[in-house]
Amino acid sequence: MKLKPLYDRVVVKKIEVEQKTAGGIILPDTAKEESQIGEVIAVGEGKLLENGEVRPLKVKVGDKVLFSKYAGNEVKVEGEELLILREEDILAIVEE
Amino acid sequence: MKLKPLYDRVVVKKIEVEQKTAGGIILPDTAKEESQIGEVIAVGEGKLLENGEVRPLKVKVGDKVLFSKYAGNEVKVEGEELLILREEDILAIVEE
Amino acid sequence: MKLKPLYDRVVVKKIEVEQKTAGGIILPDTAKEESQIGEVIAVGEGKLLENGEVRPLKVKVGDKVLFSKYAGNEVKVEGEELLILREEDILAIVEE
Amino acid sequence: MKLKPLYDRVVVKKIEVEQKTAGGIILPDTAKEESQIGEVIAVGEGKLLENGEVRPLKVKVGDKVLFSKYAGNEVKVEGEELLILREEDILAIVEE
Amino acid sequence: MKLKPLYDRVVVKKIEVEQKTAGGIILPDTAKEESQIGEVIAVGEGKLLENGEVRPLKVKVGDKVLFSKYAGNEVKVEGEELLILREEDILAIVEE
Amino acid sequence: MKLKPLYDRVVVKKIEVEQKTAGGIILPDTAKEESQIGEVIAVGEGKLLENGEVRPLKVKVGDKVLFSKYAGNEVKVEGEELLILREEDILAIVEE
Amino acid sequence: MKLKPLYDRVVVKKIEVEQKTAGGIILPDTAKEESQIGEVIAVGEGKLLENGEVRPLKVKVGDKVLFSKYAGNEVKVEGEELLILREEDILAIVEE
Repeated sequence: MKLKPLYDRVVVKKIEVEQKTAGGIILPDTAKEESQIGEVIAVGEGKLLENGEVRPLKVKVGDKVLFSKYAGNEVKVEGEELLILREEDILAIVEE
Repeated sequence: MKLKPLYDRVVVKKIEVEQKTAGGIILPDTAKEESQIGEVIAVGEGKLLENGEVRPLKVKVGDKVLFSKYAGNEVKVEGEELLILREEDILAIVEE
Repeated sequence: MKLKPLYDRVVVKKIEVEQKTAGGIILPDTAKEESQIGEVIAVGEGKLLENGEVRPLKVKVGDKVLFSKYAGNEVKVEGEELLILREEDILAIVEE
Repeated sequence: MKLKPLYDRVVVKKIEVEQKTAGGIILPDTAKEESQIGEVIAVGEGKLLENGEVRPLKVKVGDKVLFSKYAGNEVKVEGEELLILREEDILAIVEE
Repeated sequence: MKLKPLYDRVVVKKIEVEQKTAGGIILPDTAKEESQIGEVIAVGEGKLLENGEVRPLKVKVGDKVLFSKYAGNEVKVEGEELLILREEDILAIVEE
Repeated sequence: MKLKPLYDRVVVKKIEVEQKTAGGIILPDTAKEESQIGEVIAVGEGKLLENGEVRPLKVKVGDKVLFSKYAGNEVKVEGEELLILREEDILAIVEE
Repeated sequence: MKLKPLYDRVVVKKIEVEQKTAGGIILPDTAKEESQIGEVIAVGEGKLLENGEVRPLKVKVGDKVLFSKYAGNEVKVEGEELLILREEDILAIVEE
């Protein structure tokens, strides 16, 4: 079963805060932090522009991304907590 | 009797939460969840762009879709509870 | 005496809730329902786009339409309660 | 002394509610009603579009028009109560 | 000493309410009235459009104008109370 | 050390209210006044338009300008109180 | 480990207030000040315009910039406090 996000939406699997990433990003207590980390597991086809064109997204499946804590919609699929964001909510790609 | 939604609106029949879909999406208690599942039963002809063109929608009749819990207008037709959403409110298509 | 709505406005005569339409739409108690049914009795020439063009409306005189309960302006003409909506407020055309 | 409204503004002289128009519009008690009737006594040269063009208005001097009760600016000129509206605030032209 | 307003701004000298203009506009008590009268003493070069063009204003120095009471910024120059408005805030030109 | 404002921002040095400018602008008590005077000490390269072009600003270094009291960001550079405004916040250029 | 900001976002490392920069910017007590200083350590590829083009940013890695105190998202990377801003939030480049 797969989620196919629409347009400029992206499906992200949150990376638990205690887990220290290879690159050393430690977010000990997300309650304090304003942002979170997650891995992109699906991307929409692109952002719908005013002239009707669709512009492909920058982020790709597998990217580790940093996003604001309050962004997106939480969903549970097959017991897995996922987040559906707009690309606009993503602050940066985390390059290890 | 049929509802023909206008422009970028979509008519969706909600899939009851207890019902476990083939693909295993379980939303035990939508009160807690922020999103819901439904089946598309009618789509508008497309989104009216600023330049007057109409851009066909991505979702099609029969698609299973995930949408934010508070989106759309509830209507009752022939005793059946339906929801009229804008395509913009749909987070993702659920592919079994 | 006739009302000629401007641009993308539409004049609608509300269909009383108890009255069961041929197609079986029953809205027993609009207080509960979020939407209403009505018949289109006049349409404006079209939506004024940003580039100054006017794009004809989709709905036509005689169409039965479903709209959100709180939309539009109520007017009384020759003792008849009418509603002036924008086409944007119409959720769907009801096809018997 | 004349008021020359700018761009898409229109000067309207309110028609008193008790007065029954030839066409039979009776608005016995505007406090209850959401809309009002008036006669157009001056119109601006047109709506300024984003591209700088001016698009002539639809309503003309002498038209009887229906507008939402809370729209526009009230002014008094030579003791006469007038209302300056945008064409956008006019719901419909009343054709006797 | 002169004020040169920028873009679509206009400098207006308020005409005192008691003073009955030749054309007979009496605004006995501006507290009640929603609009005010003034004379244009300087105009900007024009409205900056989205495409970067500047569109000359309609009002000219010397015009008597009617504007909404709460519009603009009050300034005092050489002891004289002036108001800096956008042309958009001007309801109509008062032609004697 | 210099501040180079970005795009349509402008750096202004406030002119103290007691100081009577050659042209006679006296703002005895800015608390009451809605606007303030200052001298432009740096300007950005221009306003970024929707189509990506940059349109040069009207105000120049050395201009005396009038602006709304609550506009802009206050900064202190080398002990000097400065204000960073957008050109849009400037009401007029004060020509002596 | 590196943060690659998206589109018109910029990663900035805040310069502590007590530290007097070569150019003499002293912000003794940021609590009072409305703005802050920081060094740009990464920039996005550019601002996404409505027509789908991406316009490169003005600020570059290494620039010292002045920005409003409340702008952006705070993140901690490898124990280092960083701020992710939009270029739009940057008031000026500080040239020593």
